[in-house]
Amino acid sequence: MSIVTIERKILAKNDELARQNRELFKKHKVFVFNIVSSPGAGKTSILERTLEYLNGKIKIAVIEGDVQTDFDARRIAKHNVPAVQIVTRGGCHLDASLIQEALQNIELKNTQLLIIENVGNLVCPANYDLGEELKVVVASTTEGDDKPLKYPEMFRKAGVLIVNKIDLLPYLDCNIETLKYNARQINPKLIIFETSCTTKTGVGEWCNWIIKQLPAAE
Amino acid sequence: MSIVTIERKILAKNDELARQNRELFKKHKVFVFNIVSSPGAGKTSILERTLEYLNGKIKIAVIEGDVQTDFDARRIAKHNVPAVQIVTRGGCHLDASLIQEALQNIELKNTQLLIIENVGNLVCPANYDLGEELKVVVASTTEGDDKPLKYPEMFRKAGVLIVNKIDLLPYLDCNIETLKYNARQINPKLIIFETSCTTKTGVGEWCNWIIKQLPAAE
Repeated sequence: MSIVTIERKILAKNDELARQNRELFKKHKVFVFNIVSSPGAGKTSILERTLEYLNGKIKIAVIEGDVQTDFDARRIAKHNVPAVQIVTRGGCHLDASLIQEALQNIELKNTQLLIIENVGNLVCPANYDLGEELKVVVASTTEGDDKPLKYPEMFRKAGVLIVNKIDLLPYLDCNIETLKYNARQINPKLIIFETSCTTKTGVGEWCNWIIKQLPAAE
Repeated sequence: MSIVTIERKILAKNDELARQNRELFKKHKVFVFNIVSSPGAGKTSILERTLEYLNGKIKIAVIEGDVQTDFDARRIAKHNVPAVQIVTRGGCHLDASLIQEALQNIELKNTQLLIIENVGNLVCPANYDLGEELKVVVASTTEGDDKPLKYPEMFRKAGVLIVNKIDLLPYLDCNIETLKYNARQINPKLIIFETSCTTKTGVGEWCNWIIKQLPAAE
């Protein structure tokens, strides 16, 4: 029982820090999303395609979360956007205090869009609010069409679902309509995009949707 | 700091229960492995192919861990082996006490091989010993060849790596030699199998290896 209490306290503290982050983002009119998925579903690839499409059009910064290594941050750095790396050293999720620390290295007043790439984990990051506007969950077609039902919390907490690797559908036992149906069973309000980072299908639609979410400049 | 202490206490308690499980397995001459991976890497499919190949040859039981739903347990039940479902209801890993509970429904003296399918998560289950003989980590080719470096703890703790979905290699930007090289950088002792559950490639090799691990009968 004491474990539950402590877990609750950790989450309550996290929620307070997330609230502070959210106020800061609002003050500086920054649109922030937190991109989550299983390892290897394609978060970093989607981020790269997004940067290719949007960089130059809007001011973007990235916070890159990883359990180990700075491989992803190096991939992002090539796109010439301000990027901060958080290595959790075994930790299974980002939390609001790690984001607060990372924000010390990001010029929010010069940022319109902040993308936070979470650790590859479809379970734990669902419980940690970072102060983002919304969670974007990436589900790869290769993971099968039952994942929303098997890991419902993440799909419940997300505002957007990106179904990625649609170029591989001909070779898989995955029905994309079933996948989307299952996702909507869990969360009827989900906005769904279908992408392939190899063929770049769907990237434009996703990026144009982002542009529409940005707060109006003064 | 208090959080760290509590986490340590939880792990110490878990280690003690795992030790008890391990003794019980040894007493009944049961070979036990704990199969871990990201969501959708193919744990349940490998389990199904393994049961098809080994069922009737040796006596097998299964403990099936899931965050939600009994989909996987239903897939296993079709193979007519004793199977116990653990639903963690949001919990991100199995622990030794959950296994202890599940064991009340398994006749160990009538079991040669016990397969525990963990929750789909490449991070948290690495820290929880269940009393198994070894961890089997499944990495899907679709996740990319850098996963051992990005989630090293799981590859460090595993005795076997199954590289799954090798039938998809022609369509992916994944070099299987790089994947195996990266895995061996983290853990030089890893025994590696390459499988496709669609074409059944490699399933026989893997299953024959299992047979060789079984303790001799009295």
